[in-house]
Amino acid sequence: MKLYQSNLSPFASRCRIQIYAKAIDDIECCPPPGGLSSDEYKTHNPTGKMPALEIDGHVLGESEVICEYLEDRFPTPSLRPQDVLDRAHVRLLSRVTDLYILDPLFDLFPQMDPNNRDQTAVDKTLAVLKTNFALWEDYLTRGGYSDGDYAVGDKLTLADCAMVPALFVMVNLLPTFGVADPLVDTSRLARYWENIQKDESCSRVLSEMAEGFKAIMGGA
Amino acid sequence: MKLYQSNLSPFASRCRIQIYAKAIDDIECCPPPGGLSSDEYKTHNPTGKMPALEIDGHVLGESEVICEYLEDRFPTPSLRPQDVLDRAHVRLLSRVTDLYILDPLFDLFPQMDPNNRDQTAVDKTLAVLKTNFALWEDYLTRGGYSDGDYAVGDKLTLADCAMVPALFVMVNLLPTFGVADPLVDTSRLARYWENIQKDESCSRVLSEMAEGFKAIMGGA
Repeated sequence: MKLYQSNLSPFASRCRIQIYAKAIDDIECCPPPGGLSSDEYKTHNPTGKMPALEIDGHVLGESEVICEYLEDRFPTPSLRPQDVLDRAHVRLLSRVTDLYILDPLFDLFPQMDPNNRDQTAVDKTLAVLKTNFALWEDYLTRGGYSDGDYAVGDKLTLADCAMVPALFVMVNLLPTFGVADPLVDTSRLARYWENIQKDESCSRVLSEMAEGFKAIMGGA
Repeated sequence: MKLYQSNLSPFASRCRIQIYAKAIDDIECCPPPGGLSSDEYKTHNPTGKMPALEIDGHVLGESEVICEYLEDRFPTPSLRPQDVLDRAHVRLLSRVTDLYILDPLFDLFPQMDPNNRDQTAVDKTLAVLKTNFALWEDYLTRGGYSDGDYAVGDKLTLADCAMVPALFVMVNLLPTFGVADPLVDTSRLARYWENIQKDESCSRVLSEMAEGFKAIMGGA
């Protein structure tokens, strides 16, 4: 199998945490053929987005679909809790991260240059994010989190796979827009972020994301 | 259990098709307490959106999460195929419907009145939809559909639950915006739409949606 991806993409990073945690060794990580959104890549994955998983000529797009597929195909160790309600909380946290956190965060990427920035649009997005961070904290609490190492229960789940890369983007991107400490109003989320970085698969992917981030920011 | 919903909501209709097909009889369908987006309703479901499923004081939002929960809790009859790749295609079709079809379709709702319409915004959304309908047809084909009664395989799945309400909105809403036959360029999707209406649970929900639509359009 091949995972078309980049190390910095939070959606691809979500899949890599899972792949490392499950020790799936027959997936080769490589860049999208022809580049992201290219006509060549669209013959593989029609949306032109990453990640996509190629399996014997079939291509699955959408990180969430890939994660669920890998759970179905490689059930052990499971990153879906046994209890059906816990499992639903995992899916809820994953989806909230995807739609209500990463979606607005991505709106900030074209505004990175402070000399070429639509400040009204930025302020609007920052206000949405502030509301949605509170929503995220609320869902984390509803899922049973108080001060543990993992989002739901006491083991790594697909919720952590989704949340960790989004938190990386959040804490690294928002200071550029004047938000020095994005987690200041969400104490459980802050505690979660501190604790989850001890997990081996999460820590490995966070290092890979940091390398990718340094490269685009013009670091050494 | 209670499903907070309305009969016209395509997201709630997705859950109702599943509930009818699985004959789950202990779910009461009722409107969101205090109304959609109200402060009262947000104490139940923080996004203020519908549907939401209340289970012994716990509330799950997001139709996709609710559908997966109901499959986990009431596994028979299963609306997820046995084969893991088919199962992934079901999830892919559901997600494409959700994000690439319903999301832009919802942008058209505030533009219903032809005398108070931002035509530039409408044209932009219609162009996105045209591209995304082709994407939908592509995913339907990749999932193995040629001319059967169901989207994936020969039985009702969660893909049908997601697609049918979106197709209802599409064929009923787009003529208002000058698109007389939205399915003219997507022959497989057109065939699918014709065939799937024979399914009992789909046909029941389509009648309920039609009632709801007639009510908001000022019909008898």
